[in-house]
Formats: sequence, structure tokens, C-alpha cells
Amino acid sequence: MINSDIITDVVIGMSDGLTVPFALAAGLSGAVQSTGLIIIAGMAEIAAGSIAMGLGGYLAGRTELDHYQSELKREYYEVDNKRDIEIQETKEFFSNLGLSEETQQKAIEEVTKDKDRWVNLMMKYELGLEKPDPRRATKSAFNIGLSYVVGGLIPLSPYFFVKDGITGLKISAVITLICLFIFGYFKSKLTGVSPVGGAFRVMTIGAIAAGCAFAIAKLIQS
Amino acid sequence: MINSDIITDVVIGMSDGLTVPFALAAGLSGAVQSTGLIIIAGMAEIAAGSIAMGLGGYLAGRTELDHYQSELKREYYEVDNKRDIEIQETKEFFSNLGLSEETQQKAIEEVTKDKDRWVNLMMKYELGLEKPDPRRATKSAFNIGLSYVVGGLIPLSPYFFVKDGITGLKISAVITLICLFIFGYFKSKLTGVSPVGGAFRVMTIGAIAAGCAFAIAKLIQS
Repeated sequence: MINSDIITDVVIGMSDGLTVPFALAAGLSGAVQSTGLIIIAGMAEIAAGSIAMGLGGYLAGRTELDHYQSELKREYYEVDNKRDIEIQETKEFFSNLGLSEETQQKAIEEVTKDKDRWVNLMMKYELGLEKPDPRRATKSAFNIGLSYVVGGLIPLSPYFFVKDGITGLKISAVITLICLFIFGYFKSKLTGVSPVGGAFRVMTIGAIAAGCAFAIAKLIQS
Repeated sequence: MINSDIITDVVIGMSDGLTVPFALAAGLSGAVQSTGLIIIAGMAEIAAGSIAMGLGGYLAGRTELDHYQSELKREYYEVDNKRDIEIQETKEFFSNLGLSEETQQKAIEEVTKDKDRWVNLMMKYELGLEKPDPRRATKSAFNIGLSYVVGGLIPLSPYFFVKDGITGLKISAVITLICLFIFGYFKSKLTGVSPVGGAFRVMTIGAIAAGCAFAIAKLIQS
């Protein structure tokens, strides 16, 4: 079984990687004759998109880690210095679970005995924060960026072999829509929604994005 | 106070909207002379990116909702038909909190009395699922897409007023890097990390993406 974090990263990167360079190339196919310019723009977009998404993912991971550490520090401080307020918050947590007054008191007595465990409870259930993996940010950046590049090269590849933009677009559309369908199928299966329905939805988004890009490029050019 | 969901959407959309069209336009500035083509490609990219991100956000929201509903149905089924297993899972939850055997038993007795509350506890704390807002998916799609368009028009705007790509790039770089800095500052402030450090990081990602896109476009063209 592949790590589910990697799958999430690949899904994030490839989803946009297949769609945006495909739509951009489609848009340019309607406005320029030569495929040379489409390739230059497409490759520039893949570079821009993969770096923005990859480093963006890295930054998000780092921020999550910083946020967790600062909240953890604050919880330890509060357990030591604002004990009454923390006990009140713990009481509310148990009360919301539906425990009786008597059981709430007993539970509080027991969880507050071990400070680490208590802080952990507050972090996880009061604040809803799970401890993030410190190495995750770097790995995530790489996985998302690489998936974007792989995804982006698929719709762009036909333009390398034909001279005319519209011919390139036709081949690119067939290949990319098939890939989006397959990709959407597996993505939906992983998230537990209907695979065929999900596959159609992912494919439709790609088609709409490409159609709009084509229309806008045509409109500006004329 | 503005709704935090809206802020999250604006951050997601504008973050990529400022970066990717900026980097694409920068890349093309190194490879083509006229700004007309840069504008066509940039506008096509904004259309493609905003639709891919907006509809992608919609799909993610819908998937989250479907997933929640199907898990909720399963939990109700299990509470009715696999009661022993569910009680065992609830026991583990209380045991992990650090409660004694006696208090675990009492707590289980109390929470299993009210079926809705029990299912809610399992959804929230065993599976870590919060009930999503059903209208969120549509709103989110719109907010993310619009933020991408607004963000993307900023780096592209100079190219409308100058004839030469490199001049456009110079003005675009100054405007966009300032905007990324301001944007990064407020984004960092919201997530609780150092604002100036965060602002520099966001700006650096934009600069790296633009630099790489420029280099790749130059390389292919020559």
C-alpha cells in the first residue's frame, strides 16, 4: 500500500497539471498558428505552476508545523498558569460528549494527572490539531511539483510532433480528456465517491477550462 | 470580522493567481517581442487557472460532503448492528484519553444512551470528521475563482500599456513582488507566523517561479 500522503500530493499536483497547461495550450491554438509558441508558453506555464504549487505546498506544510508548535507551547503555559480555565475547558469537552456531572469530575481528575496526556487531549480535541510530520513539508513540495510536471507534459506532448496548432489541439484534447477520465476515476475511488460520476466531473472541468481559454484567446486576438 | 472560510478561499485563489500568470508572462517576455501574445497567453491562463481552481474547489467541497454523509450512514448502521464493536471503539477512545477502567465504563454507559450524540462523538473524534456546510462548495468555487482572476490581472496589467515585453516585465515584476509581499504579510499574520518572514517567503516563491519560467522559455526558443 502506497502512503496516503503521497497519493494526496500526486492528486493535487496532477489534477491541476493536467488541466491548466491543457487549457492554456488549447487557448493559444485558437490564436497562434505555430506550435513553437504554444510549446514555449506551455513549458513556461509548467515551470511556473509546478514551482508555485510545490513551494506553495512546502510553505503550507511549514506554516502548519509552526502553528502546531506555537499552540503546543501555549497549551503547556496555560496548563501551568491558567489551570482553572483549562479545567473548565476540559469539563466542557466532557460535558459536550454527554457525560454526567459526576463522571465529568472523575474524568477530569484522571486526565489532569498526566500533564503531557492532558495537553495532548486539548491539542487534539479542543483545538483539532494533529501533530504534523516535520519532514512532510519537503516531501510534499517535491511530490506535488513533480506530479504537476508529469501531468502538464501529457497535454503538451502532441504539439512537439505536429506543425499546426489546431491539429495539436485535437490530439491533445483526446489524450488529455482520456487521462482526466482515468485520473478522475481513481481519485474518486480513493475518496469513496462514485468512480464513473467523479471521472466525468473531473473530465468536464478540464473541458470547460479549455473551452473558456480558447474562447477568451480568440476574443482578444480578433 | 470577515468569515474565515472566505479569507481561506481568497488566500488560496490569490496566492496562485498572483504567482502563475506573473511567471508565465515573465517567461514569454524573454521569448517573444510583442506584448499582444503575452496578453493572449496571460488571459488564457487566467481563464484556465481560475476555472480549474474554482471548479476544483467545488468538487473538493462536494466530495467532502458526500464522504461525510456516507460515513454518517455507516456509523448509524454500525451503532445499530455492530453495537459491541462500536462500544469497544468508544472504550478505546476513552482509554486513550487516560481514563481509568471504571470511569471508561461509566462514560460508555452515558454516551451510548443518546444514539445521535454517540454517532456524533464517533464521527468527530474517532474519524475526525466535522459536518461540512452544504452551501460551502458553491461559495468556495466562486471565491477561489474570482480571487485568482483578480490576482492574475495585477501582473498582467502593465503589458496592456507598453509595447515591449521586457519593459512590461520590469513594471510587472515591481508591482507583483510588492503585491506578493503585502499579500504574504497578511496571510502570515492570519496563520500566526512571523509576518515579515512569511512575506519574504511568499515573494521569493513568486520570484523563483518567474525566473525559472523565463529561463525555460529562453532555452526552448534558442
